[in-house]
Amino acid sequence: MSGPVDMVEVWRGNLLESIHQGHAVVCDEAGEIVEAWGDPEAVIYPRSSCKMIQALPLIESGAADAYNLTSDHLALACASHNAAAIHNDLVSAWLSDLGLSDDDLRCGPQTPRDAEVRDALIKIDQSPCQIHNNCSGKHAGFLTLNKHLGGGPDYEKIDHPVQQANLAAFEELTGETSPAFGIDGCSAPNHACTVHGFARSLAFFATAQDRSDTRSKAAVQLVDAMTKHPELVAGEGRACTELMRAMDGNVALKTGAEAVFSAIIPEKRLSVAVKITDGAFRASEAAVAAILVKLGVLDLSHPATIKRMTPTVTNWRGLEVGHIRPTAALR
Amino acid sequence: MSGPVDMVEVWRGNLLESIHQGHAVVCDEAGEIVEAWGDPEAVIYPRSSCKMIQALPLIESGAADAYNLTSDHLALACASHNAAAIHNDLVSAWLSDLGLSDDDLRCGPQTPRDAEVRDALIKIDQSPCQIHNNCSGKHAGFLTLNKHLGGGPDYEKIDHPVQQANLAAFEELTGETSPAFGIDGCSAPNHACTVHGFARSLAFFATAQDRSDTRSKAAVQLVDAMTKHPELVAGEGRACTELMRAMDGNVALKTGAEAVFSAIIPEKRLSVAVKITDGAFRASEAAVAAILVKLGVLDLSHPATIKRMTPTVTNWRGLEVGHIRPTAALR
Repeated sequence: MSGPVDMVEVWRGNLLESIHQGHAVVCDEAGEIVEAWGDPEAVIYPRSSCKMIQALPLIESGAADAYNLTSDHLALACASHNAAAIHNDLVSAWLSDLGLSDDDLRCGPQTPRDAEVRDALIKIDQSPCQIHNNCSGKHAGFLTLNKHLGGGPDYEKIDHPVQQANLAAFEELTGETSPAFGIDGCSAPNHACTVHGFARSLAFFATAQDRSDTRSKAAVQLVDAMTKHPELVAGEGRACTELMRAMDGNVALKTGAEAVFSAIIPEKRLSVAVKITDGAFRASEAAVAAILVKLGVLDLSHPATIKRMTPTVTNWRGLEVGHIRPTAALR
Repeated sequence: MSGPVDMVEVWRGNLLESIHQGHAVVCDEAGEIVEAWGDPEAVIYPRSSCKMIQALPLIESGAADAYNLTSDHLALACASHNAAAIHNDLVSAWLSDLGLSDDDLRCGPQTPRDAEVRDALIKIDQSPCQIHNNCSGKHAGFLTLNKHLGGGPDYEKIDHPVQQANLAAFEELTGETSPAFGIDGCSAPNHACTVHGFARSLAFFATAQDRSDTRSKAAVQLVDAMTKHPELVAGEGRACTELMRAMDGNVALKTGAEAVFSAIIPEKRLSVAVKITDGAFRASEAAVAAILVKLGVLDLSHPATIKRMTPTVTNWRGLEVGHIRPTAALR
């Protein structure tokens, strides 16, 4: 079994200052490996990069239809958002439509990444609330499913019907019995799988438009929602949002904590799963961008590509002092 | 030549989620390797972890005495500070004593890490200034040396007498001709050396009290200043400050960007240099703490040790969801 491979270099002046290793797999429509780096059998937590899997039961169960969810709700259910006004307002309205409030969430409060919202809270000495948590859309989805199923309030617990539905979808799509679960930043369980298993689950989404079963139709809805609303999936200035825009809505992208990245490419029936072993976002973003360029779906010269794949390192005065680039293996 | 070794593990639930590799060297009083992990000959930028070397010419030149600098100025010259009020007030007064102001600094403006100062700026819609830069104490030292030498205003340029004095001290203490330099976050040059060379330079400080030459006396002053004012070297809540306090002022510690850490242990005539190859602070802090425990100068059960060496990973609700720990190699 091979170890991780060098994936992303950080240069300062003429010296390689830091380096990131990782694993990555590209899967075809059958879920078979087209190309791999590092160890496809490495076991990872996909973290937030598998939110589209966690949102499947919301649609499959009929809950999304029953509560009149639209594509913006579905995009938010798959999001790690900035807690900008567009995200917060929509999650608030969604909870209100369910007859619920911030208090019903179990994701915990988080300081908004959006500077305007963060500063507005600071100016009135107000603490962030749970709606500001980057996962609040996913949790609004959980609450919607829970209301539909009639479950108890502990919807984030591993043995709750909501999480059991998530586990079932996860294991069916990865084709693996999950060997472990961890509790995510937002308190929901996150199930482990191999890098190959994760890419296989993403290939289900990349080929869903070719099938007409309930789950495949749900998968198409989620990919459509993500690519239609890139600003809801992350937010202004973020990799997912800017790279999805750069690919004109043809690819669904999702980042995850500890440097996981997923890509769903319906037009090519391909999927990509990346895990940087040290957990650095600068590296998962550069690596996934490089692989998307390699696969011919992202333009090497697009500003969003340059910003993520080969960014300049600047200092406090804005001087260019170095650069980041994928290793030869990914170029 | 060996590669980096696994140094720090990040666990979530029962799964190893992320891992950090690195190099480390412990040097004795002769600058020889007592113990090493990874490749002692790996070339690194020490970044801010070598600020005590950059402060030597300030004292050796007579500038510190000429401008009546005290131990708190010297601690700040070696600091990567939080920009809390104690740091900002002292740097402001120092510049004022020199007849200079924020405009004379070349470190660039940086958002204060200190939450109180940061929020106060936000509340009055004011941008951070250069005094808030974590390196402003080092730059106040550069300006003091520059005033003493009568140099031009571009004190941060590689060919300026201030930076040439720094380079000379760096090469003499590391025992190496520096193969490269990079521009640091604060716009000053940062010179490359091997991990062994860096540890050798720190051993000079760890043995300085045994000698009476000008440079050695300057080194003693700097180590004394750092260990006397741990709150100035970094700030409340920071690894350098809390670990120095935990060691009762017997060890000088300094973090650096891209995960370098230096330790000077005068009572044992030992020094430590750590570089995590991916640049993650959580790993450089855990690794240096583990090595200090191994060397018998840091108590394994001290709260500051636990916080850095084997911290709990918590989520947005404050639940314990994982833990960080050094690998067996460092334990």
